[in-house]
Amino acid sequence: MQNCHNYQIEHKDRFLNELFDLLRIPSVSADSTKNKDTAQCAEAVKNALLQAGCEIAEVCSTAGHPIVYAEKIIDPSLPTILTYGHYDVQPPDPLDLWTSGPFEPVVVDGKIYARGSCDDKGQMFMHVKALECMHATNSLACNVKFIIEGEEEVGSTNLGKFLEDNKEKLKADIVLVSDTSMISMEHPSIETGLRGLAYMEVEVTGPNRDLHSGVYGGAVANPITILSKMIASLHDENNHIVVDGFYDDVQELTTAERTALNTAPFVLEEYKSELGINNVWGEKGYTTLERTGVRPTMELNGIWGGYIGEGAKTVLPSKAFAKISMRLVPNQNSHKIAEIFTAHFNKIAPDCVSVKVTEHHGGEPVVTPTDSNAYKAAEKALETTFGKKPIPTRGGGSIPIIALFEKTLGLKTVLMGFGLDNDNIHSPNEKFDVVNFYKGIETIPYFHKYFAEMQSA
Amino acid sequence: MQNCHNYQIEHKDRFLNELFDLLRIPSVSADSTKNKDTAQCAEAVKNALLQAGCEIAEVCSTAGHPIVYAEKIIDPSLPTILTYGHYDVQPPDPLDLWTSGPFEPVVVDGKIYARGSCDDKGQMFMHVKALECMHATNSLACNVKFIIEGEEEVGSTNLGKFLEDNKEKLKADIVLVSDTSMISMEHPSIETGLRGLAYMEVEVTGPNRDLHSGVYGGAVANPITILSKMIASLHDENNHIVVDGFYDDVQELTTAERTALNTAPFVLEEYKSELGINNVWGEKGYTTLERTGVRPTMELNGIWGGYIGEGAKTVLPSKAFAKISMRLVPNQNSHKIAEIFTAHFNKIAPDCVSVKVTEHHGGEPVVTPTDSNAYKAAEKALETTFGKKPIPTRGGGSIPIIALFEKTLGLKTVLMGFGLDNDNIHSPNEKFDVVNFYKGIETIPYFHKYFAEMQSA
Repeated sequence: MQNCHNYQIEHKDRFLNELFDLLRIPSVSADSTKNKDTAQCAEAVKNALLQAGCEIAEVCSTAGHPIVYAEKIIDPSLPTILTYGHYDVQPPDPLDLWTSGPFEPVVVDGKIYARGSCDDKGQMFMHVKALECMHATNSLACNVKFIIEGEEEVGSTNLGKFLEDNKEKLKADIVLVSDTSMISMEHPSIETGLRGLAYMEVEVTGPNRDLHSGVYGGAVANPITILSKMIASLHDENNHIVVDGFYDDVQELTTAERTALNTAPFVLEEYKSELGINNVWGEKGYTTLERTGVRPTMELNGIWGGYIGEGAKTVLPSKAFAKISMRLVPNQNSHKIAEIFTAHFNKIAPDCVSVKVTEHHGGEPVVTPTDSNAYKAAEKALETTFGKKPIPTRGGGSIPIIALFEKTLGLKTVLMGFGLDNDNIHSPNEKFDVVNFYKGIETIPYFHKYFAEMQSA
Repeated sequence: MQNCHNYQIEHKDRFLNELFDLLRIPSVSADSTKNKDTAQCAEAVKNALLQAGCEIAEVCSTAGHPIVYAEKIIDPSLPTILTYGHYDVQPPDPLDLWTSGPFEPVVVDGKIYARGSCDDKGQMFMHVKALECMHATNSLACNVKFIIEGEEEVGSTNLGKFLEDNKEKLKADIVLVSDTSMISMEHPSIETGLRGLAYMEVEVTGPNRDLHSGVYGGAVANPITILSKMIASLHDENNHIVVDGFYDDVQELTTAERTALNTAPFVLEEYKSELGINNVWGEKGYTTLERTGVRPTMELNGIWGGYIGEGAKTVLPSKAFAKISMRLVPNQNSHKIAEIFTAHFNKIAPDCVSVKVTEHHGGEPVVTPTDSNAYKAAEKALETTFGKKPIPTRGGGSIPIIALFEKTLGLKTVLMGFGLDNDNIHSPNEKFDVVNFYKGIETIPYFHKYFAEMQSA
């Protein structure tokens, strides 16, 4: 393993430069005007996998953005690790809040600033470079397969069909994913659960056209006012979510589980100060770690209606819109929640407006086992490179595909993430610490080694 | 007067074409990128006034958009009519809802479609062409002065100073304004009151940056959710406005005044059907005519925050914004209401967010007398050309400058408007019926004639 690490040290500047090339491609999956860039990014990932040592690497067309598949089989009798990642990124808006261009990566104070630096190009690329290190130094301990998709940020719409169609090809022993975060470099951790997601868009229509607010105001329902009242009603005074049936399937944690969860290092004052807030907010009766990890939530991701330009316009608009998403916990189901939400939103609409509710992508919550060889191998790998046993945590985010791997391929996943919560993923100035990038490349080969040893034991 | 009308008939196609030239200039006062167009429009209005017969016409610079002043004094012993209008227009957004270009005027089914066709280029231009008709046929009965400003849609910021600085020059007997509407061509009417306006912009800030809604959602106040709750609280279950002290100065109407107001022709089913709504909305205890004419109101003119692009983005935004305006009735004061609103909005903000409130333009409510020569002259002029005595009504809109004319110049105003409520002013597909445009040009000379006769009687 020393050879492998020496190789990394020798080539580390090139590794960073190659990541920068990938970060320069604006592969925003939600923005159809960027489809060429997304396709170009898939091609770049394929080439990087070939260069790293894969024998097969291909760009597979889908009904949406392409999926990159690659493999290197060194010995069919050895275990196989299927690494999953994604090359697509979130939209960079609001652009004016970026200190440097979202697609012009720079290193400032040891941090790589760029959209996708952490989520997920930077983390995905650690696996590509770890493979190169292992391949170049003949230290590969497992067969490797890669699925790098281009639709993670828009709900992985076409990955399910790809898995179904390629069950044989994708046979493996474990799915390995680096698309989550750890508590800190001093407190390495492994996420053992992810929340599901239901993402809705609502449209409230009042009059059939924009009206003069002086001539009609006060007599015709204003869709912004009505939408605000409807949104306001969705959380009660204890910030519980008020949607009929929303909590019905929620699996409550045991007291022991809650206690364990709350042992993770967390300093409220630091949390508030880092976010610039005077006070936290959330569901009564739960701690911040519980609110972000194990409780279902509802967030307003966007709202718009009427005149939003410079100055003043006295308009009573015809329509108002909002994007509303819900994070789900075990046993909630995203489709059921989407239905429940739609029914509830229609029910609470007053008769002076009409509403339309549409569903964006969703995904199911997952909990990963901590008693498996894969988890233990990840634990030991992190302990080797960080000198400290990682803490199991529950992540607040969603990677809808994890539930699909289990359902379609019968595979468990290990979430070995090297990001940090303050990496500004989905925000302006997304960053990934250079040291985390290198630590990931160093740790991954140990996972391969320990997993091979434990599986053959 | 027959000569005057014959001249109009002879030149009516040219009059329409000249109006079209004016409508083609995108003189949007709220949009600073259109400053050149606004200046060009002022120049065009000046030239039109010279062409119509004014001896003096000048473009007067202000700290904002220029004011056009013009005059024709035929005999200092005759009464003087000061005609007010504005050449600036509302922003055309949302552009995609226009059937034809907002600055590409067309006549369809007898209606002129263009931004400003009714508000106020079309109505202002009636006075220019009426002057041409009177001048060309030697039928001018009064001296005429014109103030055509370029900031009516953004609060007439610089007109107050202009009036102060030019008191002597602006001496007149009455202010005549066509910037309001009548009930219908079958029910001519004259507005005898206008509401005031206080226009606020609010900003709610949660965390210091956009956050990932999975990582932080449920634990950090979402500014959209909080803003929605704050907006929702501003109207109670009876749709009364909930702002401490808001109604304190409202002058309630007498039962007789309310009864008179409600005699105006109004068919609720037609109103609803024309707007495409199932039900009206508004303050409990008041009719639709009262809600839009004599009661103060609060409207949400715009709202925005978070991701408003295509698809889905799981962001918990840092900020959310809204534009909120209030229409005021006699004795409310726009500055006091702006202060009250600001204090209230700050008071209701929870400690998990910070808020900023700024004031856009405002204006004071006015009531015009119905026992004056000017009102009687307008009444008789409309009766002459429509064959029916006009109904006095109260308008829901605001022309902040009317209160200023009285305060600074000591002049009363008569609001002789030829628009219709369904002219889509401030909305896409603004229109002005060709027949109303011509009827205005026909009626204005009668006002001049009757006003001169009554003043000298």
